[in-house]
This record gives sequence, C-alpha cells and structure tokens, in this order.
Amino acid sequence: MALQINIDKKLPLRHTCPMKEIVRRSTRRIYLGEVPIGGAAPISIQSMLSVKTSNLPAAELQIRELVSAGCDIIRFSVQDLEDAKAIRELKKVSKAPLVADIHFDYRLALASISAGIDGLRINPGNIGKVEGIQALVAAAKERLIPIRIGVNSGSLPTDLVQKYGVSAQAMVEAALSHIHILEDLNYQEIKVSVKASSIPLVLESYRKLSQLCDYPLHLGVTEAGTMMRGSIKSAIALGILLEEGIGDTIRVSLTSDPVKEIVVAKEILVSIGMRQGLSIISCPTCGRTRIDLIRLTEAVELALADYADKPLTIAVMGCAVNGPGEAREADFGIAGGKGEGLLFAKGEIIKKVPEESLVKELLSLVEENFGLS
Amino acid sequence: MALQINIDKKLPLRHTCPMKEIVRRSTRRIYLGEVPIGGAAPISIQSMLSVKTSNLPAAELQIRELVSAGCDIIRFSVQDLEDAKAIRELKKVSKAPLVADIHFDYRLALASISAGIDGLRINPGNIGKVEGIQALVAAAKERLIPIRIGVNSGSLPTDLVQKYGVSAQAMVEAALSHIHILEDLNYQEIKVSVKASSIPLVLESYRKLSQLCDYPLHLGVTEAGTMMRGSIKSAIALGILLEEGIGDTIRVSLTSDPVKEIVVAKEILVSIGMRQGLSIISCPTCGRTRIDLIRLTEAVELALADYADKPLTIAVMGCAVNGPGEAREADFGIAGGKGEGLLFAKGEIIKKVPEESLVKELLSLVEENFGLS
Repeated sequence: MALQINIDKKLPLRHTCPMKEIVRRSTRRIYLGEVPIGGAAPISIQSMLSVKTSNLPAAELQIRELVSAGCDIIRFSVQDLEDAKAIRELKKVSKAPLVADIHFDYRLALASISAGIDGLRINPGNIGKVEGIQALVAAAKERLIPIRIGVNSGSLPTDLVQKYGVSAQAMVEAALSHIHILEDLNYQEIKVSVKASSIPLVLESYRKLSQLCDYPLHLGVTEAGTMMRGSIKSAIALGILLEEGIGDTIRVSLTSDPVKEIVVAKEILVSIGMRQGLSIISCPTCGRTRIDLIRLTEAVELALADYADKPLTIAVMGCAVNGPGEAREADFGIAGGKGEGLLFAKGEIIKKVPEESLVKELLSLVEENFGLS
Repeated sequence: MALQINIDKKLPLRHTCPMKEIVRRSTRRIYLGEVPIGGAAPISIQSMLSVKTSNLPAAELQIRELVSAGCDIIRFSVQDLEDAKAIRELKKVSKAPLVADIHFDYRLALASISAGIDGLRINPGNIGKVEGIQALVAAAKERLIPIRIGVNSGSLPTDLVQKYGVSAQAMVEAALSHIHILEDLNYQEIKVSVKASSIPLVLESYRKLSQLCDYPLHLGVTEAGTMMRGSIKSAIALGILLEEGIGDTIRVSLTSDPVKEIVVAKEILVSIGMRQGLSIISCPTCGRTRIDLIRLTEAVELALADYADKPLTIAVMGCAVNGPGEAREADFGIAGGKGEGLLFAKGEIIKKVPEESLVKELLSLVEENFGLS
C-alpha cells in the first residue's frame, strides 16, 4: 500500500504557542545545601528513602539511584541515634542535600545537625520542652539549617480537630502555630507543608496558607497510593497548585519504588512547562491503527530514557496519513503504517522506514541532534 | 513485639471537611441517548474503540468491556460504509450511547444516523459542500442527534495557523467558525472540544472557549501518551479545568487498552470529589515500614476492584503505631506491623490480624458494610 502523505509543505514553521506565563507567588528564598528553594528558584524535586537510614549499604544504594534519576533533595527518617550517626556516611555518598525527618525528639535533631545534615523536618510545637526547642533553633541557626514544618491531616492537634474538624482551617492554624514558635526565636529559615490525602483538602489548605505567609511551600499529597492512583492524585493536586503559582518544591508520595516518585514528579513539571525535559506524545490506538502502537510507544520510552532532561518532544503516531501533520509540534517522530512507517521532524517527512527499524532510526536521529556528551 | 496503639479514643468523630464546592460553569444541556451532558449533569466518561468498527466480534467485545468498566459514552471511527452499517448491530449490544467519529464525509454521517447512531463527531467546516452540511443538519435535527465539534491542535486550518500560530486563539476561532455554521442552520445540539497535547495550550483553549459560548465542553488531551505519562498529563489538565468548573464530559486518551482510560478517568473524578467511588489511600514505604507495603496495597486494589463505584475510602498503612490514627478519614483500613497487622475503622482499632489474613479480613469487613447486591 502506498503511503499517502498529506502535509502542507508551504506551511510556515510558526508553531510557537504564545502561552500564558505561570506567575509564581513570591516567596522567601532558603537553601538546602546548595539547592535554592523559593524566591523564583526552579521547582525542586524531593523523595524519601524507603529503607532504614542506618542500613548503610541499602541507604547508599537508594541515594545513588535517586540522584541518578534526578532527585534534587533526599529525605529519610531519623528514628534513633544510629540513624543520626549514619548521616555522616551518607553525606559522603550523596550529591543531593539530605533532610532528616524527625518526630518529637529534638536530641535526634541536634545529633543530625552535628552529623552534617542539610535540613530538618520537625514540628517545633510537638517537641514539648521549651529548652528543647531553643537548643534546636540555636543549633540550626549556627549553620542556617532550614526547618520544614510538616503538617499532616492525619496527625492534627486534637484541639484544632475538635474546633474545626479535619479542615483547611485546622491545617493552616496548626502550621501557623509552629511557624510562630520559630519566628518568636527569630528564625525564618523555614519551609512549610500542609499535606492530606484528600485533594480538595490539599488544595484549600495550600491556597489558604499561601495567602498568610511567604515561606516557601513544599507540596505533596500524603498516602496518595500506588503508582497508578498515586500519580493521578499527585498530578491533579500538584498540577493545580503549581499552575496557580503555588509551590516551591514537590514530593510525589507513592506506595512504590522512590525512583518512580522522581519520574512522576519530572513528568508533572515538564507537562505544565515548568521544567525542560523529554515529552513523548503518542496517539491512542483507534480503528485506523495498523501497528502495535502500545508496544512501539513503550519501546520508544525505553530507548529515550537517557534523554529525560533534554528539551525534546517526540511523537509516536499510529497513522501515517495524519500522523506527521497532527504531530507537527514534535521535534521528531515516527508514524506507523502497515509493515512500514515514517520518520519525521517538525511535521516534515524525512523517510520511509521498515517497521522493525523505526525505533532505531528515531534514536539515531535524536542522538545526532541531542547527543549525550 | 507488642503493638503500641496511639489513638485518642475520646476524639469526637467530627471528620467532615467543610470544603469549597466546585462551582460548575452553566452550560446548555444535550442528551447522548439517555446520557445528559451539560446543565449540571454529572460529568460523563467517554472512550473510543481501538478496533475497526466493522470488525463486529472485536467491536462488540470491546463495547461490553468498556460498559462493564463504567464507560458512559462510546465512540468509534466510521471510515467507510461497512463501519456505518455495523452501527445497527453494535446498538443491539451496547448499553451505552454510541458516537460516530467522521472525517469530512457527510454521507458517512447520514448513513450513521440511519443506522441508529446516538451522536456524531464531525467538523462541519471540513465537509466542504454546503448541501452536504445542510443534509447532515437536517438529518441530525430530525432525531436531535448531538454533534461534537472536535478541534485538534494538530489539524488546525492553515489560515488560522498562519495568522496566530498553533495557539489558543487559533483553536478557539476554529471552534467558533464550526459552531457558527451549525447555528446559522439553527442547530444547537452541540458539544465542543479543543484538544492538544500541550497542557498549557489545552488549558488556555478551554478557558477562552468557556467564556465565549455556553455549549457543553468535552475535555481531553490528545496524544497524551502511555499509561504512565498519559494519565499524568490527563490528570493535570482535566483536574485543573474541572476544578475550575469547566468541562461536562471527559475522555482520557491513552496509548493503552481503552478500559484503562475508564479506570483513570474515574480516578480523576473521584479524586477531585466530582463522583463517588472507591478511594484507596496508602502511605509511601519509609524507614519505619516492616511489611511489603507495595504488594499489600496492590493486593487490596485487586480485591476491591468490584467496589469501584462505592463511596468508600480504604487505607493501607505501613506502620501500626501511627497508621490507624493518620488514616482516621478512611472508612476501613489495615496497618502492617511485623508479621501481624491491625484492622481498623474510622481510626478505631477493631482487631489484630496475622499478616497473611489482612486482605481477606478487610474484604470481609467491606462486604459486610458495602456488600454488592
């Protein structure tokens, strides 16, 4: 079957979309190690170790995997002094700044600071003793260690829940009370999160909070779920907030390998145009498709995994007749036919290729133009 | 190891979140078969057959699968008279209304109407002949067959692209010019889509269009990609628009099995609170987890597949100490420990259960309370 190509060759290459810029809320700038957060810094991506921190071989491996996947900031829980001691070793391995997640015990926070931690997540209101809070802030101040106040709908203070229910008002008042403790000690290296598993609650809490303070915000949906459900919920909540200009650093929480959290987080940022990166568009199979498009697209995803950070749009189209034209916005693409397909760039056909060579030819084309150095 | 439970039993059960209601844009109401679209009707979910329409055994099977997954409206491409003739048979099988997707040829539209189709997707401006458009509208009018005008960034009219680039302005002007053709023939059973694969372009196009007409809008991101990338992109774009009150019916386009499109679409609607349904929350694994949480959560997802439409929140938590408390908003849940776990309801512990019986016990509890009839 001869391929019929239906492209208007005279069409000028004027495919820019004069799009509304996302106006980001203006926030204070803090630094986690050398990673800036807030004050118009690029949105950074975080994840958390899923292994015991003091299990050094496992923790070091996961840190390496996360950094290589593009994780900007790595958090882990510090439950005991063993975990705090491990920080010194983990710092040697990690190219990303490290954050210790601590519940209640300010001594673990002090030990983490001594061991060289870059940031803390601890809620000062939960520490109890005034001297504990003072000691913590004094130590943090000395090295300008930022503290994340992390409010979670599942562990709100009882009095606030009794007054307001589990609501945005309770979330925000909880956050502000922790903030005031640090401000009263004249410390403002703060970022704040108000996470929940309910999307409407997440949205309302962050929107309210963003009007009441100018600290950088760490966005996340807690207990979001498995890869499938969790990515959808995170994409909705983070997508909505980021598009409104709210949010300075993000974590996608998944019941899955932490590396997948980075993949999903990157995809969210690239999709809304807040980070450059590989974008793969592919049409759904339909009655016109004469090629195994699902397998073809997955093969392209795999082949281009190393190009995740390149500002590159690739199209995988099922239909040679309309494919190249419909995917004019893509830098490069392939369109499947019956046994053979087309290789194209910016909607212009380059050549016909046998079906089995489509992915290889596409990869060559990408390598020529965006070759990894 | 004894489990330490840390729940404040005196906490009153006041867990409602007085959340901002989504105020939906007011649109005209149309009907696809008996499914209402627009005018405050529930958001309906669409998908499209991935097989040739005239391949009856394959098409009928896919229709049954889609309906059983919860698809409200089913579209397929009508490329020739064989496809149009198949409609009569497919109507006998389908509990959902059927939409014929037609490019250019109004005679295929007429044949589809004769064969009993419930809706059409055809752009009147692309038909060419005035008599063709008139014949189409006359036939549609007789049975009030709604017409979807489907503008796609990949196939915009050349003159608009030359004037505005591939932009929201071009998308919206294209849509309006098709709309005006139908309005001039005094036909308003219309819904409209302005799809693109770029999320910023999708957002700007639908936002603009929603201010310029009150026809119901069909939301979608074209060429969104595979299950992973496609769900994320669709979740962001549809989530943002729906939360703004824009959109009356949705399609998630995936390079995947169409049934997965329904699963993702449902998850989006349930997540933003626009449809009742099963919500499974599960914490990410962390250094505190002593159980294979990923496998456990996936087992729960599978076990509860039949409850997808029940207004039910289930929690799967990795940590028996904080789990039940953090998941107070869930109707039922399990929390894993070391070899054993907890079964809980609304944050209250019901009993300790051996790890291997957790899913079975949870399922029994759900069956007792939400038993399928």
